[in-house]
Amino acid sequence: MLPVAEAQAIILRHTALLPAVRLPLTTTALGLVLAEDVASDLDMPPYDKSMMDGYAVRCADLPTGQGGLQVIEEVTAGRTPTLEVGPGQATRIMTGAPVPVGADAVIPVERTHLLDGGQVRIDDRPPTPGKNILPQGREMRRGDSVLSAGTRLGPAAFGILATVGRTEALLQPRPGVAILSTGDEVVEAGQTPGPGQIRNSNGPMLAAQVARAGGEPRALGIGRDRVEDLRRLITEGLREPVLILSGGVSAGKLDLVPGVLQELGVQAHFHKVEMKPGKPMFFGTVATGPRPTATLVFGLPGNPVSSLVCFELFVRPALRRLQGREPGPRFVALPLAEDFPYSTDRPTYYPARLEPGSVGWSVRPLPWFGSADLRALAPANALVLFPAGEHQHRAGERFPVLRTGG
Amino acid sequence: MLPVAEAQAIILRHTALLPAVRLPLTTTALGLVLAEDVASDLDMPPYDKSMMDGYAVRCADLPTGQGGLQVIEEVTAGRTPTLEVGPGQATRIMTGAPVPVGADAVIPVERTHLLDGGQVRIDDRPPTPGKNILPQGREMRRGDSVLSAGTRLGPAAFGILATVGRTEALLQPRPGVAILSTGDEVVEAGQTPGPGQIRNSNGPMLAAQVARAGGEPRALGIGRDRVEDLRRLITEGLREPVLILSGGVSAGKLDLVPGVLQELGVQAHFHKVEMKPGKPMFFGTVATGPRPTATLVFGLPGNPVSSLVCFELFVRPALRRLQGREPGPRFVALPLAEDFPYSTDRPTYYPARLEPGSVGWSVRPLPWFGSADLRALAPANALVLFPAGEHQHRAGERFPVLRTGG
Repeated sequence: MLPVAEAQAIILRHTALLPAVRLPLTTTALGLVLAEDVASDLDMPPYDKSMMDGYAVRCADLPTGQGGLQVIEEVTAGRTPTLEVGPGQATRIMTGAPVPVGADAVIPVERTHLLDGGQVRIDDRPPTPGKNILPQGREMRRGDSVLSAGTRLGPAAFGILATVGRTEALLQPRPGVAILSTGDEVVEAGQTPGPGQIRNSNGPMLAAQVARAGGEPRALGIGRDRVEDLRRLITEGLREPVLILSGGVSAGKLDLVPGVLQELGVQAHFHKVEMKPGKPMFFGTVATGPRPTATLVFGLPGNPVSSLVCFELFVRPALRRLQGREPGPRFVALPLAEDFPYSTDRPTYYPARLEPGSVGWSVRPLPWFGSADLRALAPANALVLFPAGEHQHRAGERFPVLRTGG
Repeated sequence: MLPVAEAQAIILRHTALLPAVRLPLTTTALGLVLAEDVASDLDMPPYDKSMMDGYAVRCADLPTGQGGLQVIEEVTAGRTPTLEVGPGQATRIMTGAPVPVGADAVIPVERTHLLDGGQVRIDDRPPTPGKNILPQGREMRRGDSVLSAGTRLGPAAFGILATVGRTEALLQPRPGVAILSTGDEVVEAGQTPGPGQIRNSNGPMLAAQVARAGGEPRALGIGRDRVEDLRRLITEGLREPVLILSGGVSAGKLDLVPGVLQELGVQAHFHKVEMKPGKPMFFGTVATGPRPTATLVFGLPGNPVSSLVCFELFVRPALRRLQGREPGPRFVALPLAEDFPYSTDRPTYYPARLEPGSVGWSVRPLPWFGSADLRALAPANALVLFPAGEHQHRAGERFPVLRTGG
């Protein structure tokens, strides 16, 4: 059977960046990757800027830090000075305002005392040139590259883009992900299942996983076990960059999906992966429509826990790469929070919880009775990978851990 | 000056849960906290369920695991068995289908060979009762509590809620957060600043931070330095559970905001916090409108880096508590990735990057020239807290680290 790492490598070999799109910088763009280098259209600050409310002065006038000066002007924020500060003079200035010509330091207002007759008394340590002034262009110069292609947009990047006048940018868009649940036994969550039926829990769960991985889920509903029905829905799903099929890809007698996929030109790359939970897991690709990249087709196991884990290990990395992000999955070796004897016949991804401690994070496996136990996963925010075999794992021993985000 | 921890405690003392709301379980509900206990309306599985494609058999017929049986029926998914399996008989069954009365194990199809005349030949190890069958109610029983109030909805919870027939739930809603930038020197990102003007970078940055903390940002635009203008906009902002004022709350001569806040009944709790970057940081509350909880008013420094850090330390915990989440901020002690000599006069939150390694995470401070340097924060995904004083911090030494999510 195919090891997990090889399956992941096959998927990423078939996964390329989606074409970049110009998008407005609203909060829906949060987390997207920039597809262009962005240069500044101005110096920041655009002038020598006061970093304090106070008085712009000449250091030469205040060798001891003490003295009386004549106030010649008041510059509020948004205004510009009109007068040069000469010897024995000062200008009242606000935080963020331009420093007038002639002045070379700003004394904070708390160190001053306004006297009658437009005089101000300074009582500070001796100022040095540049004190409390941010020089023009210190943050960025006009023409400087301020953000590079490949940067993922967080709040700071939003601030930087606004600083240089951007309200939109060339970004890697969210991939549309069609989700098709299959099987005559499946009914939607809003319905009461009849005999032999169960509700579609994987559809809403996969939509949530897709959204969390940065994709845009498009639910296609439930495909019945009829070739025409499946052909129509799968054709619709193949218009998106990614199609996820939930259930219906194992070797069961009425599993019609593999035949329909083949008929529609989907090339199968693998069917099974050596892991637990999971194992039956289909990956295929097909060149469709006008897109330069192939549509990726994932067939996930119908079992909810297997579906959840296979998504994290195989679909999420593909969605990340489509968006220009480092694909992962990135495992970090963390110590077990407690002894954990465990036997398994295949490498097993076990639901767990990360716990912060005084010496960093540790990982605690959660009570879990196996692949049917979806309830165990509600409090989980990680998967810990245990090797095949019979083991007495000890508290403090390190195992590879994948954050799933809870 | 007020230490950070005391300021945080004051904020949380004034912050209560928002009233719960019934919301549809679309992906916009992802990450919200459940405000009700949810019980199952059915047994799961609703019947003894086959976990394999194969044949439902009686263990008593196969003491050696080998033998020939008469196939009496075929049960596909979504159908129910109509015949009881008697001695020497078997029923063809699909994964997920109900196990017929009389059978007590399922033999995988790979271990069988269909013969002429409706006979099947079994070639397996001796089955034990219950083999490859998930008993009715093993995952959950009708009436079982499957999710408790307080659970944060991730993908697994979406799956569980769909399993028990929920398409909506009582949830802690996202708090609306009004954002008002102030100052005559500020123009919107789409405009070209005139002399003495700068673009509004804090507005888009704060909106991104609010969205990331689970809130719903409502930009009120830019308030000019005129009392009537500020009164109108602040009154509008106080209709939301949270109002953020960016700039305009320090002691500058034209900082009119404090007066307007007082006039509108906002009770001030603090103005300054002992930290870097930051320091001027206002928090107040006012009982407004029909809401049971007070509106929280945060006045953040105009400096972009100070604003970003103050949001993470003070606003984010409040937004989390309003949503029923553990407020944080949760610092974890992580080792420095490299030597880092650093002197500072106040406890300093330094932009940094978390790096995964073979022995867990370490933290690397980023090049940063101080509070005007927003560009340094674009690649940051954490803040590391360095103590006041002159220090030669060493690689491997542990410091408190706050993840900011990049």
